[in-house]
Amino acid sequence: MIADVERYLTQHADRFVEELKDLLRIPSVSGDPAFRGDCRRAAGFVRERLAAAGLSAEIVETAGHPIVYGEWLGAGDDAPTALVYGHYDVQPPDPLDEWVSPPFEPTIRDRRLYARGATDDKGQMFTHVKSVEAWLKAAGRLPVNVKFVIEGEEEVSSSNLDRFLSERRDRLRADIAVISDTSQFGPGMPAITYGLRGNLFVEVIVSGPAQDLHSGMFGGSVANPANALAAMIAALHDEQGRVRIPGFYDEVLPLSDAERERLANLPFDEASYLQGLGVSAAWGEEGYTTLERRWTRPTCDVNGLKSGYLGEGPKTIVPARASAKLSCRMVPNQDPVKLTQALCDFLRTNCRPGLELEFKTRPGGRALVFDPDSPWMAAASRAIEAAFGTKPVLIREGGSIPVVATFREVLGLDTLLVGWGRDTDNLHSPNEHFTLEDFHRGTHASARLWAELAAAAGIEDRG
Amino acid sequence: MIADVERYLTQHADRFVEELKDLLRIPSVSGDPAFRGDCRRAAGFVRERLAAAGLSAEIVETAGHPIVYGEWLGAGDDAPTALVYGHYDVQPPDPLDEWVSPPFEPTIRDRRLYARGATDDKGQMFTHVKSVEAWLKAAGRLPVNVKFVIEGEEEVSSSNLDRFLSERRDRLRADIAVISDTSQFGPGMPAITYGLRGNLFVEVIVSGPAQDLHSGMFGGSVANPANALAAMIAALHDEQGRVRIPGFYDEVLPLSDAERERLANLPFDEASYLQGLGVSAAWGEEGYTTLERRWTRPTCDVNGLKSGYLGEGPKTIVPARASAKLSCRMVPNQDPVKLTQALCDFLRTNCRPGLELEFKTRPGGRALVFDPDSPWMAAASRAIEAAFGTKPVLIREGGSIPVVATFREVLGLDTLLVGWGRDTDNLHSPNEHFTLEDFHRGTHASARLWAELAAAAGIEDRG
Repeated sequence: MIADVERYLTQHADRFVEELKDLLRIPSVSGDPAFRGDCRRAAGFVRERLAAAGLSAEIVETAGHPIVYGEWLGAGDDAPTALVYGHYDVQPPDPLDEWVSPPFEPTIRDRRLYARGATDDKGQMFTHVKSVEAWLKAAGRLPVNVKFVIEGEEEVSSSNLDRFLSERRDRLRADIAVISDTSQFGPGMPAITYGLRGNLFVEVIVSGPAQDLHSGMFGGSVANPANALAAMIAALHDEQGRVRIPGFYDEVLPLSDAERERLANLPFDEASYLQGLGVSAAWGEEGYTTLERRWTRPTCDVNGLKSGYLGEGPKTIVPARASAKLSCRMVPNQDPVKLTQALCDFLRTNCRPGLELEFKTRPGGRALVFDPDSPWMAAASRAIEAAFGTKPVLIREGGSIPVVATFREVLGLDTLLVGWGRDTDNLHSPNEHFTLEDFHRGTHASARLWAELAAAAGIEDRG
Repeated sequence: MIADVERYLTQHADRFVEELKDLLRIPSVSGDPAFRGDCRRAAGFVRERLAAAGLSAEIVETAGHPIVYGEWLGAGDDAPTALVYGHYDVQPPDPLDEWVSPPFEPTIRDRRLYARGATDDKGQMFTHVKSVEAWLKAAGRLPVNVKFVIEGEEEVSSSNLDRFLSERRDRLRADIAVISDTSQFGPGMPAITYGLRGNLFVEVIVSGPAQDLHSGMFGGSVANPANALAAMIAALHDEQGRVRIPGFYDEVLPLSDAERERLANLPFDEASYLQGLGVSAAWGEEGYTTLERRWTRPTCDVNGLKSGYLGEGPKTIVPARASAKLSCRMVPNQDPVKLTQALCDFLRTNCRPGLELEFKTRPGGRALVFDPDSPWMAAASRAIEAAFGTKPVLIREGGSIPVVATFREVLGLDTLLVGWGRDTDNLHSPNEHFTLEDFHRGTHASARLWAELAAAAGIEDRG
């Protein structure tokens, strides 16, 4: 059976690329109201492809861009159900003049498909659409039930997704979620991501004098909000790069020896990592490797600083205000609400007399780590190995994918984060692309995944 | 004789105000090329008024806006020569919608003349033009020789003044310089400023990764330029508000007991000072009063901070760059060149691995303190007391007036800083004004000053 499916995938591979190019031609930039109609067109395109594949599919209206929902439940109650999530919206293409070929004119060069959204996430999402088509056309059925939720607001905070998920909680019941919106660990080194960091945001505004003061006439006699803010930020870390907020590490689960060993065994080339980022040396919390720092340790980073005079040349003022955008990345078991408060309290403690503080907070999601030894993980690993010819590595990811936390909280679902692309595919940057080999391997891995998930549930259906 | 002069001043007081209004109608905004012609018109107006007063006066071209030069040398070689400096250019009037009456339509309300430049510096400068007119018209001569240098680029760093002063060094020879571009200590509390702080500027740019990085994917593994910059700035001060740059205080002259006592005896109301600035508490170097901190102690202030994301809401990045504009105010005997280097070295010492530093420096002027017991000071004090009915207080000023340092360096001149305005006159702000009483008292004080300077030089000519 899987042989028929794979044959179908191979025979129709060129058509799949042409269809993906059609989708990529639609400039579905969710963040820009000018492209509202294009977002709707992209949703329609995805719905139509799902229906053509053999799913029942509909457009679900939201307060923003619509969500595409599709399902095929013919595998029956005994078979597991997979909830596939993806998004049809894309980042703005700016700066336009850095694109070699226009962002919405998909172009193949060197066996890579260049277009905004090629990998994030139209291309990766499309592998699942095509794999279910292959099963339904070549085998007449799928080994599992599938539900597709393809949204159009991932690049703008998924504002209307949570409500959709909550309202359709029963309809969306599933055994495992599947998302292809991450990357391989390296070219030809496929990966399953089993952990994500959480995050929280605090913007702190330090106000001093009612207006900017002449630094000659008044400097030295009142606290300078910018100097004070710098001192508050500096206090956040000790000399060893550890965060000094009281209680910050209290709930952090220690890394197991097994996990440290697993991370240490990954083929990570620190020199080329640093070279890729354009920095001459690593820096971070003492006692941890670079990968441990990225994936398993909490952080507190400044994301933005603003105070006083930002133009050219000198302007000698004591600024009236200074502000910083801060965010923490959290690891299991840290509580974003509690730590948001602790961060604000700590900043307040380190402020100077005569200054007022204002906070804008947004506790983000908790960190998530899935059991790397679960049957679902094993199933995904087998599927990827079959398609890529090599066993995937198990990795964690320093970023956050909010929908994964929502799936856990609202639907009680774990997620398989199986990414076919590469972190060099220029996501969110000019000249985004998707290597055709990765796209095709992705369709095969996806097709295999449905069989392996059924097998993992005890239904021997690997073809 | 002085009686005739004073009678003239009183009789023509209203005309002086009308003439000043004519000058204020000319929008001589030196920083905006659109007003280039108006700057020239203002120069012409000043030249014409000097000539009408009885001086020989000319327009001197520069690479920028012209300088007006006028002189009357009829007092002879035995009489002292005063060099009067002022400026006819003004700050931009923005924000326009905060002006009660338009900035270039001079309007009198509550015996105050409202217009851009009313006090800074057209109005204050004009008192000297009118006092020499009064002497020459009412007495046929002046007790001293006078030379007027009225420039048009004070608000844009006096870019072409130094060259003018150097080239005309011989022609400009004088015994004392006179500038009215400062303020009274308080309403009805005239002041002579005998000390100014110096300054230096350092912009530091901290560069990390080649571009902004995703703070989730990379945060924690490389030094964040904004966090690092904050730590560098925080290191500049200790808990007592003292600057930690090595050698920073080495050359600072200690305050004498006499001077501390003089400052302590000034009628300074700290509560209303803080209220005026809109801050709830003072903060500064331990062991010094607020006035001592403002006028006699060096500082290191942040003037501007910029890094990463400056828009609304969160954006989770490790910024590629962070920059700060810093400036130090210096006191006698600190060396701006040496301290600029020390500041840069100190920042470098406190930087983190993997970051690059770039500096843009501009050593400003040295601090200046004039002998408060000099005969010139005593002369100015008597002149002011006669006009204001109260003895002026001797104060220092935390800011810098670069031309004063140039007079010292190029012409070997000390300067009498005698200001008639108030620091509540909204210099550089909307609704700038000059109280008419201050304007008229200024003309009388100026007229008296010429007599007192002659007296101080041993020529009894107080009328």
